[in-house]
Amino acid sequence: MGTELLATYAIPRRGDWRRRADEMAVGMTVGSWTDLPALEQERLAQFLGRVRRCEPISEDWAHVAIAYPAANLPPQLSSVLTVAFGKLSLDGAIRLVGLSLPDSWSEALPGPRHGAGGVRERLGIPQRPLLLSIFKSENGRTLPEFVEALRQQWAGGADLVKDDEIFFADRGAPLGDRVRAARDLAASLAARSGRPAPLYAANLTASGDRVVDQAARALAAGAEAFLVSPYAVGLDTLTALSRLEPHPILLAHPAFAGAFINAPGYGVAASVALGLLVRAAGADVGIFPSPYGSVALPRDDALAVGRALAGPDARHPALPAPAAGLHPGLVSRLVADFGLDVVINAGGAIHGHPGGTQAGARAFRAAIDRLSNPDGPVSPELLAAWEKWGEGSR
Amino acid sequence: MGTELLATYAIPRRGDWRRRADEMAVGMTVGSWTDLPALEQERLAQFLGRVRRCEPISEDWAHVAIAYPAANLPPQLSSVLTVAFGKLSLDGAIRLVGLSLPDSWSEALPGPRHGAGGVRERLGIPQRPLLLSIFKSENGRTLPEFVEALRQQWAGGADLVKDDEIFFADRGAPLGDRVRAARDLAASLAARSGRPAPLYAANLTASGDRVVDQAARALAAGAEAFLVSPYAVGLDTLTALSRLEPHPILLAHPAFAGAFINAPGYGVAASVALGLLVRAAGADVGIFPSPYGSVALPRDDALAVGRALAGPDARHPALPAPAAGLHPGLVSRLVADFGLDVVINAGGAIHGHPGGTQAGARAFRAAIDRLSNPDGPVSPELLAAWEKWGEGSR
Repeated sequence: MGTELLATYAIPRRGDWRRRADEMAVGMTVGSWTDLPALEQERLAQFLGRVRRCEPISEDWAHVAIAYPAANLPPQLSSVLTVAFGKLSLDGAIRLVGLSLPDSWSEALPGPRHGAGGVRERLGIPQRPLLLSIFKSENGRTLPEFVEALRQQWAGGADLVKDDEIFFADRGAPLGDRVRAARDLAASLAARSGRPAPLYAANLTASGDRVVDQAARALAAGAEAFLVSPYAVGLDTLTALSRLEPHPILLAHPAFAGAFINAPGYGVAASVALGLLVRAAGADVGIFPSPYGSVALPRDDALAVGRALAGPDARHPALPAPAAGLHPGLVSRLVADFGLDVVINAGGAIHGHPGGTQAGARAFRAAIDRLSNPDGPVSPELLAAWEKWGEGSR
Repeated sequence: MGTELLATYAIPRRGDWRRRADEMAVGMTVGSWTDLPALEQERLAQFLGRVRRCEPISEDWAHVAIAYPAANLPPQLSSVLTVAFGKLSLDGAIRLVGLSLPDSWSEALPGPRHGAGGVRERLGIPQRPLLLSIFKSENGRTLPEFVEALRQQWAGGADLVKDDEIFFADRGAPLGDRVRAARDLAASLAARSGRPAPLYAANLTASGDRVVDQAARALAAGAEAFLVSPYAVGLDTLTALSRLEPHPILLAHPAFAGAFINAPGYGVAASVALGLLVRAAGADVGIFPSPYGSVALPRDDALAVGRALAGPDARHPALPAPAAGLHPGLVSRLVADFGLDVVINAGGAIHGHPGGTQAGARAFRAAIDRLSNPDGPVSPELLAAWEKWGEGSR
């Protein structure tokens, strides 16, 4: 944190790379500097970018940190992308590897409205990892089928259930109907158990400019949580969602982010794209590829995303939700990586459990419960999961 | 065009890459297929993705074309990103290299409202390349300074003048004031010359969810054209801008796109990101790095962007605006590359001309006029430009 927008880039140590750093700082703020008359310089100094750090990090690469005065842009993340990585992104091999927002933005961009604490309070679960189950094959589903699939996931012990992010073909079970049906089902479960109701996160399907209106209507129908893909609809749209009242619980999906986090030397570090930026935009839960499973992030990158979601001072953390290819045997490893404030995000190993969806959720919950009682008996569902996907390691 | 969303990917020829293609088609549409009961298959067939092409293109890479039924998503580009390159973008080395939208979307996404023909008609310039001049160092500028800089660019012969995309610090010359001042200046120039007024494209600076409102207010104040960065504020926001009435002329800036077009084997081809998608979203002018100058695209990629902006049937083309590091000596080469329906987008070589901004614009216009009269006399401004930046080649 500081008074400036501080962006750190990895650039190749080729040619006069230190001069390139100076040109970046000047070019993206005041355009030119040394040719300017003294009077102009005096007036424009408040907008001038400055190189704060410039050091080799390997044989081939250097890190360059540039400070952009907060006066240069409004507190909104689209403008951060435009100023800090707009034209620069096009400038050959360059990667945005770090970002810190000006202090003065903390009111406009307070981050998660619920965060780890708020989500736990709503669910009445103070400490253990949370289980987030994903619908599978939702396209074309009818409302009764949706309700039955939701019931199975919740009955098995999923704390949150979310739509698939590609679920747009919802004529058979439109968003408003899903929200109302989920609300009723949750209420009946809560009445029976005497515990707070589980959560359903509906996928927002409107076009980027109408997502906020769609969410407001769903909130009025009783929605509490949404799934949104900020790199498809825009980071500012996520921010606008976080400003709705009552604040929805927001799950940010990493859709499209692979286009710019995966290539070495280009794009944006995962910790910035899926950590810092989605947290600043107001996500309460940040979904990202876990270090394990099918679609994977390198472990160091995934850990850095987790740290970035927790925030610079760990006071109002968003919850990290590593995802893709997870099974119950990986739960203890995920907790070792991300701590207890983690959301275990699973789909395939829930619906693909030999005993079906409900058993699949139970197996995950059993793996979570074993964290505090590692020598207790192994439930049959967990055993079946271990047999299918492996026991993992502690 | 067709009844489906057709996406073509480059994937590595590693392991069972043909099977990976099948898994992509199924995974991003119905989740699973071969395990489904026949009745389910019958019902879900309408949502099933299909591999339309699957062929090696080199020793190491293959192209895979997948058709997503139009029924799977609404006609909006955020959903295209989520369905066709959402989760898939995260799946290791993979690049989206081609895209074609369903025919049935042509009403919802008609593309440019003005296009090449409309922009030319508005400017009263039937055939020659258009000159787009960029303000430099706008941060902190006052309104009188803005007007004087605009006057110089227009007086020198710029057909369009646009704000810098990083111009947010506009307290001294707020958007509404700039629009009104530009309108008055344009009207007085038009009255004096008897020709249609030149255009000013104002940078939209609101957050993504409020850009459309900001543009509507500016239109009411007399704005005719806007600069917008769709990969910062969201492609759907560009679409929404194109639906405003009276339709503004929309210039799409490539800010942030370098994060996902530059790395070989990852991200999105420039022709898709800066051509097809911005055209479909309604841009009338698509800005992209030229094959020459400082920030460069490989020539083949830049030509492909130009073709994609022209559209699949060249009936309602958007104008390509190659940019960055252009000088008058490059005009004939740009026309050889992109044809006469091109916008020459220049900043540094206008304001950096030895004779100043107005002379810089004049030098570009002289280079453009020489296209139809290559043996005519060389103006002193063009000669000075040639001396500073080179004569280029014909």
